[in-house]
Amino acid sequence: MSTRFRHAALVGKYQAEGVRDVLDRIARFLVEEGLEVSLEEQTARNTGLAGYAACSVDELGRRCDVAIVLGGDGTMLGIARQLARHRTPLVGINQGRLGFITDIAIEGLEDTLRPMLAGDYVDETRAMLEGGVRRGADTIFESFALNDVVVSRGSTSGMVQLQVEIDGEFVSSLRADGLIVASATGSTAYALSAGGPILHPSIGGWVLVPIAPHDLSNRPIVVPNSGEVSVEIVAGRDASVNFDMQALTSLQHGDRVQVRRSTHEVHFLHPRGWNYYATLRGKLHWNYGVQLT
Amino acid sequence: MSTRFRHAALVGKYQAEGVRDVLDRIARFLVEEGLEVSLEEQTARNTGLAGYAACSVDELGRRCDVAIVLGGDGTMLGIARQLARHRTPLVGINQGRLGFITDIAIEGLEDTLRPMLAGDYVDETRAMLEGGVRRGADTIFESFALNDVVVSRGSTSGMVQLQVEIDGEFVSSLRADGLIVASATGSTAYALSAGGPILHPSIGGWVLVPIAPHDLSNRPIVVPNSGEVSVEIVAGRDASVNFDMQALTSLQHGDRVQVRRSTHEVHFLHPRGWNYYATLRGKLHWNYGVQLT
Amino acid sequence: MSTRFRHAALVGKYQAEGVRDVLDRIARFLVEEGLEVSLEEQTARNTGLAGYAACSVDELGRRCDVAIVLGGDGTMLGIARQLARHRTPLVGINQGRLGFITDIAIEGLEDTLRPMLAGDYVDETRAMLEGGVRRGADTIFESFALNDVVVSRGSTSGMVQLQVEIDGEFVSSLRADGLIVASATGSTAYALSAGGPILHPSIGGWVLVPIAPHDLSNRPIVVPNSGEVSVEIVAGRDASVNFDMQALTSLQHGDRVQVRRSTHEVHFLHPRGWNYYATLRGKLHWNYGVQLT
Amino acid sequence: MSTRFRHAALVGKYQAEGVRDVLDRIARFLVEEGLEVSLEEQTARNTGLAGYAACSVDELGRRCDVAIVLGGDGTMLGIARQLARHRTPLVGINQGRLGFITDIAIEGLEDTLRPMLAGDYVDETRAMLEGGVRRGADTIFESFALNDVVVSRGSTSGMVQLQVEIDGEFVSSLRADGLIVASATGSTAYALSAGGPILHPSIGGWVLVPIAPHDLSNRPIVVPNSGEVSVEIVAGRDASVNFDMQALTSLQHGDRVQVRRSTHEVHFLHPRGWNYYATLRGKLHWNYGVQLT
Repeated sequence: MSTRFRHAALVGKYQAEGVRDVLDRIARFLVEEGLEVSLEEQTARNTGLAGYAACSVDELGRRCDVAIVLGGDGTMLGIARQLARHRTPLVGINQGRLGFITDIAIEGLEDTLRPMLAGDYVDETRAMLEGGVRRGADTIFESFALNDVVVSRGSTSGMVQLQVEIDGEFVSSLRADGLIVASATGSTAYALSAGGPILHPSIGGWVLVPIAPHDLSNRPIVVPNSGEVSVEIVAGRDASVNFDMQALTSLQHGDRVQVRRSTHEVHFLHPRGWNYYATLRGKLHWNYGVQLT
Repeated sequence: MSTRFRHAALVGKYQAEGVRDVLDRIARFLVEEGLEVSLEEQTARNTGLAGYAACSVDELGRRCDVAIVLGGDGTMLGIARQLARHRTPLVGINQGRLGFITDIAIEGLEDTLRPMLAGDYVDETRAMLEGGVRRGADTIFESFALNDVVVSRGSTSGMVQLQVEIDGEFVSSLRADGLIVASATGSTAYALSAGGPILHPSIGGWVLVPIAPHDLSNRPIVVPNSGEVSVEIVAGRDASVNFDMQALTSLQHGDRVQVRRSTHEVHFLHPRGWNYYATLRGKLHWNYGVQLT
Repeated sequence: MSTRFRHAALVGKYQAEGVRDVLDRIARFLVEEGLEVSLEEQTARNTGLAGYAACSVDELGRRCDVAIVLGGDGTMLGIARQLARHRTPLVGINQGRLGFITDIAIEGLEDTLRPMLAGDYVDETRAMLEGGVRRGADTIFESFALNDVVVSRGSTSGMVQLQVEIDGEFVSSLRADGLIVASATGSTAYALSAGGPILHPSIGGWVLVPIAPHDLSNRPIVVPNSGEVSVEIVAGRDASVNFDMQALTSLQHGDRVQVRRSTHEVHFLHPRGWNYYATLRGKLHWNYGVQLT
Repeated sequence: MSTRFRHAALVGKYQAEGVRDVLDRIARFLVEEGLEVSLEEQTARNTGLAGYAACSVDELGRRCDVAIVLGGDGTMLGIARQLARHRTPLVGINQGRLGFITDIAIEGLEDTLRPMLAGDYVDETRAMLEGGVRRGADTIFESFALNDVVVSRGSTSGMVQLQVEIDGEFVSSLRADGLIVASATGSTAYALSAGGPILHPSIGGWVLVPIAPHDLSNRPIVVPNSGEVSVEIVAGRDASVNFDMQALTSLQHGDRVQVRRSTHEVHFLHPRGWNYYATLRGKLHWNYGVQLT
């Protein structure tokens, strides 16, 4: 059977019990299915798996046409962000409780992967955030994020005062612990904890979620992701910004965090029959089929 | 100066002090500007203004190319819903505190309207909801809504159990006081009270907001408005549904409330310089320019 | 071994599979332990258990010094409310998932009950609400509640406007779907769904939780339970009030719902080692022992 | 007319326009009313007011039987915390928008103060938090708070994992941005922003409010203030604790923040007719007397 893919990147960088065996099993299976396999270099180092090329994530992106990631959502997000520029689609395999985006269990993974490798999968596209920090005329930080960009108060300062604009248009001023600009992917992460809504991935927007806002009417707002969101530090000491977990600290008054939609997108491949809402229900433990008591 | 419009519908149907005088003033101004003026029939009856044709809202929709509405957001929404099939754009004039969509004050209304009548305005499009209730193979209710479709428990029953699907795909099952399916327009109304986010009008989605859900992880979710949302009554006595405020009571188990995007849209005309976020800030009393204390 | 109790009321009124067998088992065990057993009359009728006196709940309250209730929290609350005036302590046995107050599993119930019957238990006291509805000079409704008193809008009316006073002092005016006055016991029920906090049972207060309040700053407030809470219907059609699930509908403008602390209290007996916070953690699925991911 | 008080402390330490003149006016009035006046030392230095003794806050506490504070709630809270051990009652005068506890306007302040000095006032008692941080067997920090004790994540770390106990009994484990232990006074400050309820000052409890908890069922809980609350840092980098705004940073895993009710209380004196709920309504902009629209 001819496969849709030719060369798989295999990633499972965190050291956990049994990771080596599962990676070995996946690699052998991929070879049996006729794919070339390259290992992410840290994965290769940690596991000592021999017989496969070891490459940096960037090299993997240039050479491979699919990435198989063993790990939780955090690992997957990190790799996805790095591979985004190469448009490499990703498949997530989870050793533990399935995640929002790592939805293939180890049990029976061969039977799940086989049709996917043959081209029978659901290709789900996720928008990414990109941007940075402007200080006067300079750009002092640049990064990407798949989940969210978070502007936060310093840990001993009372609050931060922020001014939000979109494409130069004043949106709101808020005093809060911070502000989350989340993608649909990030809407089920930190933004949800802070009171934000869930955004379906096909919604062309970001959700702006204030964290513990001083003004009770400062509510989450879903804005189009076609424009540039700017968040200016107006007051408050030691503010910081995180693009996913990549941080710049010691922001100064007048610094502007800028966020726009990246030209890069992430492609997650799911087994046929995969369903966004089923994943939500599973992860959020929504009752279905419950009876009134 | 030639005007963009030819024939204005004038509506101000609720009896309040001073309404007659303001309507008289607006009507005279419109005639001076070269427009033909027709009065909505209830407006004509309540005010006794003579010299203008009195028509039903439907006739106004067929004859007029713009509608000037004097009143609050509630009046405006009602007329907008009725005029939607005729694509008549609406201008809202507010006697009291300005609304989300009725944003022209009486003071200086002539100076505000003059350039708008000449074609200098911001045309804002709002998506509408339409749908009805299916009982078995029958459609037992059909309606439109600009704000929201609300499924609610009966007033003496503990809760209602609902099953939500989109395009036949199971989304969630919830036990709650009810569920709000709100448009962007409705996201700043009842849905906001129930904990929903604000949706910018250009977002192509509805927000589904559970009301007092039994399960704390049942959170508001923003879904694409391209599909059909179905809400089935699974359990609970005396459930009802409201399309804006048009109600059908005594829903039975198995009844399905269906909501989709209407092919009709509403056009609100705003004075040049109008700004969605400024309206939000004003209505929600967001502080701007506040100082840390 | 001498027992602390002499005469047990046995209640398990709802018809469910296996109830008869479990009740039979409990009754025999109580007799073996030296107690006299009386059955609640509906329980006796449903199960056909012979050899025990069948009494109304009120008679049980006069004759028995302990009540053993088989069922969920709903059954327990109903019986507890009726027995409150007799000060009969209650023990809850649950066939299914343990509840907030029915915390003894069927498996091994004899070993759990034996020391309790001998006087080795945790006696937990819960405050009750009592009150009614005043229309002008008349009291048109009176009732008790263990969970909450809820004032709600009619199902097709937009909202209800309420004025809240405590001991004649104006507290707040709100427009909302309704208002919940909840005891600590009720704070983990409907009030929690509507956004209220959890109240430890030893807190001498009620929590007032607005349901979907129009004004976003109308937040839950915990007030002393030493005074009389009055909720007046100011506007809105078809408002109703529920004391637990006992309803009075068709409230009129000017009607005042009055709530005060009942002189009666409810005593729940728990096995030694019972712990309020452990019950909370179990019921709310709070993670404990989780690991950062 | 004899006064209830003999010796007033006068505090207005922050430099703002007009403060000197208002302090001068108050001091003269107090002297006219027969009181001795001492100035807080920083107040004396900033204003250059002559003719009054200048003392540290501690000396004021030993010598004076009432403290008159000119400033906002923040100033008042700081002084109140320092004077608590001396039981000196406080009167708050506010130059700007009245606060929760600084409720006397400058306009007509003499007419408001005169009866209060004669003993005609409402004496309101507020409970205080006290505690510190235990590292192993050592106490490495001790402090007081009138509003709240806040344990927070470091600004670049994802979250903190905390274990809460009360009197050695396990309450909950949470992963969040942090946890607020707030008094009734603090319940209308940061805790309210984070989603907590309002606590009436006569409620004998604290409210524990998780900040952006990972687990959506981790809700605010009101617990008795008779026990000791312990919050252990289980995971997360660079956690810190604030007692009001007094901070200890760089908490380590295993550190326990301990909070209990202080034996000291704060006494705020209000003009006769003062009303807790009226202050709430004013500060939170609750509508009263609004009409349904």
